[in-house]
Amino acid sequence: MAELVTIERSDRIASVILNRPERLNALTFAMWQEIGTIFSRLETDEGLRCIILRGAGGKAFAPGADISEFAERRSNSALARDYGHVMHRAMTAIDDSRHPTVAAIEGVCVGGGIELAMLCDIRICGEGSRFGVPINRIGVTMAYPEIGALIARVGRQVALEILLEGRVFGAAEAKEKGLVSRIVPDGKVLDEAYETANRIAAGAPLVNRWHKKFARRLMDPKPLSPAELDEPYQTFDTDDFREGYQAFLAKRTPEFKGK
Amino acid sequence: MAELVTIERSDRIASVILNRPERLNALTFAMWQEIGTIFSRLETDEGLRCIILRGAGGKAFAPGADISEFAERRSNSALARDYGHVMHRAMTAIDDSRHPTVAAIEGVCVGGGIELAMLCDIRICGEGSRFGVPINRIGVTMAYPEIGALIARVGRQVALEILLEGRVFGAAEAKEKGLVSRIVPDGKVLDEAYETANRIAAGAPLVNRWHKKFARRLMDPKPLSPAELDEPYQTFDTDDFREGYQAFLAKRTPEFKGK
Amino acid sequence: MAELVTIERSDRIASVILNRPERLNALTFAMWQEIGTIFSRLETDEGLRCIILRGAGGKAFAPGADISEFAERRSNSALARDYGHVMHRAMTAIDDSRHPTVAAIEGVCVGGGIELAMLCDIRICGEGSRFGVPINRIGVTMAYPEIGALIARVGRQVALEILLEGRVFGAAEAKEKGLVSRIVPDGKVLDEAYETANRIAAGAPLVNRWHKKFARRLMDPKPLSPAELDEPYQTFDTDDFREGYQAFLAKRTPEFKGK
Repeated sequence: MAELVTIERSDRIASVILNRPERLNALTFAMWQEIGTIFSRLETDEGLRCIILRGAGGKAFAPGADISEFAERRSNSALARDYGHVMHRAMTAIDDSRHPTVAAIEGVCVGGGIELAMLCDIRICGEGSRFGVPINRIGVTMAYPEIGALIARVGRQVALEILLEGRVFGAAEAKEKGLVSRIVPDGKVLDEAYETANRIAAGAPLVNRWHKKFARRLMDPKPLSPAELDEPYQTFDTDDFREGYQAFLAKRTPEFKGK
Repeated sequence: MAELVTIERSDRIASVILNRPERLNALTFAMWQEIGTIFSRLETDEGLRCIILRGAGGKAFAPGADISEFAERRSNSALARDYGHVMHRAMTAIDDSRHPTVAAIEGVCVGGGIELAMLCDIRICGEGSRFGVPINRIGVTMAYPEIGALIARVGRQVALEILLEGRVFGAAEAKEKGLVSRIVPDGKVLDEAYETANRIAAGAPLVNRWHKKFARRLMDPKPLSPAELDEPYQTFDTDDFREGYQAFLAKRTPEFKGK
Repeated sequence: MAELVTIERSDRIASVILNRPERLNALTFAMWQEIGTIFSRLETDEGLRCIILRGAGGKAFAPGADISEFAERRSNSALARDYGHVMHRAMTAIDDSRHPTVAAIEGVCVGGGIELAMLCDIRICGEGSRFGVPINRIGVTMAYPEIGALIARVGRQVALEILLEGRVFGAAEAKEKGLVSRIVPDGKVLDEAYETANRIAAGAPLVNRWHKKFARRLMDPKPLSPAELDEPYQTFDTDDFREGYQAFLAKRTPEFKGK
């Protein structure tokens, strides 16, 4: 039996692939478990510069939850809560990743697929991609961690329009709504995602991780301590700053070491 | 004398209509009172699935406050505060409504008209609609509940651009700024609003109300309690979830009861 | 030696000009000091209605920090912190200004140039303007006040895309991302900026200052006191309200005095 979520690791980039193409990568309980485990494991990978999240098969990112599993896994509130906890552990692992993340969205990206994609720092889709969260048609709500993640990205007004109307819409509207960062021709999504990952990987990795950390910290309204306010200046004591600065003056490409 | 705000109720949809077409629905003290009363009354309507807010006459949503009333109602700070309290009671009644709300914006939508429209979950306008808040031209400020509602929807930068520049602008710019959700040809605003309301009404009503509740709760930075975090899973114990799930498997249209 | 930051003052509008055109207005320590001093001084200017911030020479707003200065000013964390404090004092002086601010962006607006421009209430650029923050290529992070200001304007997702990818992009994308308010043909940036400043100056200055104050206050999640909630109604006791109201009824242009 094929693994439901696979991982490919190149020199500096890891690809996490939803691997159920015969079902358009419809998300199961086991897949949410596996996504959480994989993203947690990647946290300790020091050489990693970027993670790409995508679906196998080229036809879909993910169409949402596999509804055939609901009888077993979500048929009442207690089961649904257990399912939710596993789903939210995976979401938190992506959201809290210190590594930059890119969602490569080929084809359909609906329901839980949107939840997954939205957690990535950059989201690239194809012209023919389709989006929506029509869960009010099956009587299902988003739990707080899901609607909170959506609102944090697109605002309350857009989140409610998507949830209340339950409409499925195209790539241009997804971009207008802030769901995706950019649109490329179908067939070019992976190219653009890997070019983006390479642009990210060309930057100093400590800087990228600090920027993600600072941006996450600023979501918390608690005032910053003096020690926190000073942390960003540490970059000026790193080998990578000296390398970047020298390379800039010499008009050459820097070789960052993450130190 | 015609009522200043009228209500039409169909099977699942209520239309609240600003009804002063001879003055383009310019908003009076009595109209703000009536809006607050109507939206408060609609809260207890269990069969209601969606509220449409619109102007009578097809030429305007609302051009803002009726300035001829200022001598009597807003000629000093004490009077203006009393007026403000009635206005903000109406705004709160719309903002806190558990029912999904759609603004159908035909023609001009300026000043207090924007305030009203922005409180609706989805805002649909015509290609020829005009927007703006030129109140600095008459020496009037927005009170905190008004500017807060605007910033919550479009952000501080867009809100300040609108207020400081006082410019009146068209539908395309209103969409770019996040003031409206979508633009349709001028004679099609009501059609699109009612189609949208029907799409909303096709979803499970408890789910729609929960989503509005959760989105509103998340505007408060106070941490969620365990009981609050568990509330969304209650949907899996509802009749409507079982109906939605069975209808999905049977590929038929669900019949939700709101239970 | 020419002044590094100059100021032009007309009847109601002040222009603050980054004046190092031979280096495309690359920002130095001395310029950050001067910007802070100038904006602090303008706070007490009662007759002022609007500040325009722009670059000299017509080719650039600012390409970011002058990197040749790093050896002296930012070669380790202690020096970088001192530099940061001066930079952030200037940023705070712009951000907290009670006067409306307009950034006129001709040509390149990169790194610290974006930081400066984003602090202005309205940002106007030319079709050929270029934007980006490629600081991860030299191993430098944004400090908290900088990334906080960016996130406050464009949201976490757009801020991270800009910082992680380090890509330089054009005016249309800058507008999509919320970095600029509007785009005009390249030779028309100053015209549009001064027309905008004149539109702002046509409004009651107390109202504009109040709106800026209220919008800033609402960034703080602390609940508003009753006295704060009442402050906006003071406008109805001003001479400018009476003038604005009378001018509206008489269909003439109001003459506001700021009283």
